[in-house]
Amino acid sequence: MLPPGSRAGAGLGARQGLIMRPDDANIAGNVHGGTILKMIEEAGAIISTRHCNSQAGEPCVAALARVERTDFLSPMCIGEVANVSAEITYTSRHSVEVQVNVMSENILTGAKKLTNKATLWYVPLSLKNVNKVLEVPPIQYARKEQEDEGKKRYEEQKLDRLETKQRNGDVILPVINPEPHTVGYSQSSLIHLVGPSDCTLLGFVHGGVTMKLMDEVAGIVAARHCKTNIVTASVDAINFHEKIKKGCVITVSGRMTFTSNKSMEIEVFVDADPFVDEPRERYRAVSAFFTYVSLSKEGKPLPVPQLLTETEDEKRRFEEGKGRYLQTKAKRQAQMQQAAQQ
Amino acid sequence: MLPPGSRAGAGLGARQGLIMRPDDANIAGNVHGGTILKMIEEAGAIISTRHCNSQAGEPCVAALARVERTDFLSPMCIGEVANVSAEITYTSRHSVEVQVNVMSENILTGAKKLTNKATLWYVPLSLKNVNKVLEVPPIQYARKEQEDEGKKRYEEQKLDRLETKQRNGDVILPVINPEPHTVGYSQSSLIHLVGPSDCTLLGFVHGGVTMKLMDEVAGIVAARHCKTNIVTASVDAINFHEKIKKGCVITVSGRMTFTSNKSMEIEVFVDADPFVDEPRERYRAVSAFFTYVSLSKEGKPLPVPQLLTETEDEKRRFEEGKGRYLQTKAKRQAQMQQAAQQ
Amino acid sequence: MLPPGSRAGAGLGARQGLIMRPDDANIAGNVHGGTILKMIEEAGAIISTRHCNSQAGEPCVAALARVERTDFLSPMCIGEVANVSAEITYTSRHSVEVQVNVMSENILTGAKKLTNKATLWYVPLSLKNVNKVLEVPPIQYARKEQEDEGKKRYEEQKLDRLETKQRNGDVILPVINPEPHTVGYSQSSLIHLVGPSDCTLLGFVHGGVTMKLMDEVAGIVAARHCKTNIVTASVDAINFHEKIKKGCVITVSGRMTFTSNKSMEIEVFVDADPFVDEPRERYRAVSAFFTYVSLSKEGKPLPVPQLLTETEDEKRRFEEGKGRYLQTKAKRQAQMQQAAQQ
Repeated sequence: MLPPGSRAGAGLGARQGLIMRPDDANIAGNVHGGTILKMIEEAGAIISTRHCNSQAGEPCVAALARVERTDFLSPMCIGEVANVSAEITYTSRHSVEVQVNVMSENILTGAKKLTNKATLWYVPLSLKNVNKVLEVPPIQYARKEQEDEGKKRYEEQKLDRLETKQRNGDVILPVINPEPHTVGYSQSSLIHLVGPSDCTLLGFVHGGVTMKLMDEVAGIVAARHCKTNIVTASVDAINFHEKIKKGCVITVSGRMTFTSNKSMEIEVFVDADPFVDEPRERYRAVSAFFTYVSLSKEGKPLPVPQLLTETEDEKRRFEEGKGRYLQTKAKRQAQMQQAAQQ
Repeated sequence: MLPPGSRAGAGLGARQGLIMRPDDANIAGNVHGGTILKMIEEAGAIISTRHCNSQAGEPCVAALARVERTDFLSPMCIGEVANVSAEITYTSRHSVEVQVNVMSENILTGAKKLTNKATLWYVPLSLKNVNKVLEVPPIQYARKEQEDEGKKRYEEQKLDRLETKQRNGDVILPVINPEPHTVGYSQSSLIHLVGPSDCTLLGFVHGGVTMKLMDEVAGIVAARHCKTNIVTASVDAINFHEKIKKGCVITVSGRMTFTSNKSMEIEVFVDADPFVDEPRERYRAVSAFFTYVSLSKEGKPLPVPQLLTETEDEKRRFEEGKGRYLQTKAKRQAQMQQAAQQ
Repeated sequence: MLPPGSRAGAGLGARQGLIMRPDDANIAGNVHGGTILKMIEEAGAIISTRHCNSQAGEPCVAALARVERTDFLSPMCIGEVANVSAEITYTSRHSVEVQVNVMSENILTGAKKLTNKATLWYVPLSLKNVNKVLEVPPIQYARKEQEDEGKKRYEEQKLDRLETKQRNGDVILPVINPEPHTVGYSQSSLIHLVGPSDCTLLGFVHGGVTMKLMDEVAGIVAARHCKTNIVTASVDAINFHEKIKKGCVITVSGRMTFTSNKSMEIEVFVDADPFVDEPRERYRAVSAFFTYVSLSKEGKPLPVPQLLTETEDEKRRFEEGKGRYLQTKAKRQAQMQQAAQQ
C-alpha cells in the first residue's frame, strides 16, 4: 500500500505566491539568486520530508545532499510573485530526487516567466538519531522509462558527490593592497553565527540558508570586480557533505576563478567552526562555483573586465574555469540544436 | 486583593514607535494589513499574558482565541511610526478581552491618524500543560455598565465561535487554465515551515504570524483579480480553534468569494500539517474573510472587475458574501445615523 | 513658541513590549547586546526626528552622531519583554541628546530589571539635502541646572568626537595559522550588503543596524577566544563620523585588544565600500570598543584565558586597553562610594 500522493509527478508541494520584497533584491530591483535558491530548497525540504514520513515508521527530516547545476533563466523583480512548485521524480533506497520549478509572475500584467528549474537530492535522517539514514518509501512511476532515467541520474550524481569529497582542502588566503581586477582585489568573506531560524527541526542549517549566504558572498566578489549591477546566471552542482550545527560560526569565502567576455565564475567555500561546546575542529562544509553576469540599466549583458591572474594556482584555476565554461557552452549549443531538430 | 493595573482601562500595554520599513509595505508604499495585524496581536499577547500571571499561581501564556471584525480606517505608509496601545476591557473566568488601537504618525509633519481599533480574546494556557486552561484574575470596572456590556460581548463571541467550529471542511481545488476574473484564476496558496521565531514560549504559532500570512495570500488573490494596487479594508472575525505547533508546515489558501463595485471579499484557509513526529492528520486551523479595495495612484478607490462565478458552490458563496457585505453596510449606516443624532 | 511636549523629561517616546524571540538571542538564551542597541537607537531616532520636526520649517531626519558608553546591567532572555522608554534631555543648536532606558520584564513572574541606560546624540539632516544640518527647536528645562549639566555633557562629547576623528586609520591584517589565544586567532570580519530595510528615509544606514553588526562580530571574536557562552558587558562611546549609503558593502572587523581576569575588550571597525555608481574610495565609517564577559551555565562570570600579544602594536593596544579598563573600574568604585555616602 502506497501513501497518497506518492506517484512520480504527483506529491505536489506547490507554494504559490511569495511576493518579492525590497530586501530580497539588489538596488536595481533584481531578486538575489540566493533568495530564489532558498525558496527552492525550502519547497524541496517540505515535499521530501512529507514523503519520507508518509509511511509508518521512525519520524525523520529530509536533509539536502545535493543540488544539480541550476540556470537562472530570467531575472525576477521586486513586487513580482514567485510561484514555486515541487514534485518527487525519483526515489532510491536512501534518497529522494525533487524537481522544483520557479515561475515569476507580474500580478499587475499577468505576465509569467520560467525563472528556474532545479533538481535537488534529499536524504531522510532520523529525528531521534541524526546519524541514522532511514529508508525512503518508493514512488510509483507512470512509465518504466521514468524509473530508468531516474536511476541513471541517481548513479551520475552519486559519482560526482564522491569526487568532490576529495578536493575540499583549498583555503582563501588574504592579500595585502591588491591591484584592481586581480583575484585578491575582489575576494571576500563573511561570517555568520548560526541562529535558530537558520535550522531544521534536527538543529542543522537548512541547505537553502547556506546557499543564500554563498550567493551573497559571490555577488559581492562579482560586484567588486566589475563595479556594476550584477546578477546570478547559474550555480554549478553543489554537494552538501557535512552538516552544520546550530551555534556554529560559518565563514563563507569567495574568489573569482575565471572571466569570459560577459561572465564571471566565482568559487565559494563554506567553513564551519563549532567553537563552543564541541571538541571538533573547523571543517569545510560545502563549496561551489557561481556564475554571474553584469547588466546595464536596460538589462543587457555588459562586457566584464578580464581577471588578472598572478600566481600559478590562479592561472591553473583560470584554465579549469575556462574548461567548465566551454563545456557548458558546448552542452547548451547541443541542446539548442536538438531542440531545433525536434 | 487585586494586582496593580488591573482596572478596566488600566493595564496599559502601550507600544509606541515602530518605524515602518520597506519590507512592511507593498510597492505603492502602503503598509500591509498583515503587518498591522501582527503588531496588534503582539501587543494583545503581552498585556493579557502579563495580566493572567499577575496573581500567584501556575505560570501561563495567553493564546489568541479570537479577533473581532477589524476595519482598516486609513492606510499607513513606509517611514511612518505605528503607535500601538492596548488595554484589558473585560475578563471572563477563562478569557481576556483586549482592545488595541493603532495610530499612524508621520513624525515629519506630526500628523496622526487612527488606523485600527481591534478587539482580541485571549485564553491563558498553563506553561506546564498546554491543554489546561487556567483561571483569569478578574479586573475592576469603573462602572457596572462596563461589566455588563463586556459580558454581552463575551456571550456574543462565544456563540459565534461555536458556530464557525462547524463549517471548516471546505478545500480549495486547483483549476487548469482558468479564465480571467473567475474564482480559479486568482486563487492562491503558500506553504510556510513554522520556525522558532514564529512561536510563543509554549512552542505554538503566534496568532499574529498566522494572520500576517493570511493577509499575504489574500492580497495576492486580490491583486491577481484586479491587477492594481490593493489594500486591506477589513477582516471579519477570526476564530483560532486549533493550535499550530513548531515544525508544522502550514498551507494558507485564498479564493475570492464576492465582489461589490469597489471591494473584493476573499476567504482564507489555514491548514496545518504536523508531518514529522506526529501521528496526526493535516487539519484546518483557522479560516477567515478579508475584504480588499483597489486604489488609484492618488489613493482613491477604483472600480473592481466583477467576479465570474461558474459552479453552484461559487454562486452560493457569492450570495453569502453579498449577504455579509449588505449586513456590514447596513450596520455602518445605522452607526453613522446614530452618530449624527448624538 | 514651543511645541507641545518639548520640556526636558517630556517628549516621551516610550516603546513598551517587544517580545524577545529565539533569533534575538544566543544558544544560551541571552539576548544579543546588538539587538538591544538596535532597539535603543530606533527609539532615539523616533523621538529626536519627531522633536526636530515639531516646528514649522524644512522637514528632516535625525541621524545618530554618537552613543555614550553603555553598560549592560543584567542579561535579557528569550520570552521576556523589552520595555524601551526615551526622553530628550538636552538640545544644542544642532544636536539632540536622548536618554533611553531599557527594562526587561518577565511577564510570567512580573519581575522587572533595568537592562540599560543609554545616552545618544542625534543631528537633524534636511530631507531635501542630506548634507545640510538644520537647527533644533530648543527644549524647556524645569531647572536651570538641568540645562547647565546638559551643556557640560554636550561640550565633553564634542571634544571626544573631534579626538576619535583623528585615529581611524588602523586596519586589521590577516594572520596565517595563528596560535590559540593570540590576537590573530580570534580576529573576525563579516561583510554585509546594505539593503533597503537597513536604511532611514534618507537612504542611509540606521546607526542601530551598524551597532548590531558590530556586536555580532565582537561576540564571535570573544567566543572564538574563550570558547564559552559570552555576553556583551559594555560598549564604549561610539562616534558616527561618516554616513553609509544604501547599496554599499560594509566590512565589519573585530580584534581582541585586552583581557582582564574576567573580561575581554574587542575593537571593532566598520568600513564602507560604495563600489557601485560612486567615485568614492572605501572609507572608515565607525569604530568602537566592546567588552564581553564569559558566563557559566548558572550565569556566573568565568575566568577568561589571557590574550597572547605578539607584535609591538598588539602589546601597545593591550596596555591602552588596560588603561581604559582601570579607568572604568576606578570610576565605578568612585560612583559606588558616592552612592554609599548619599
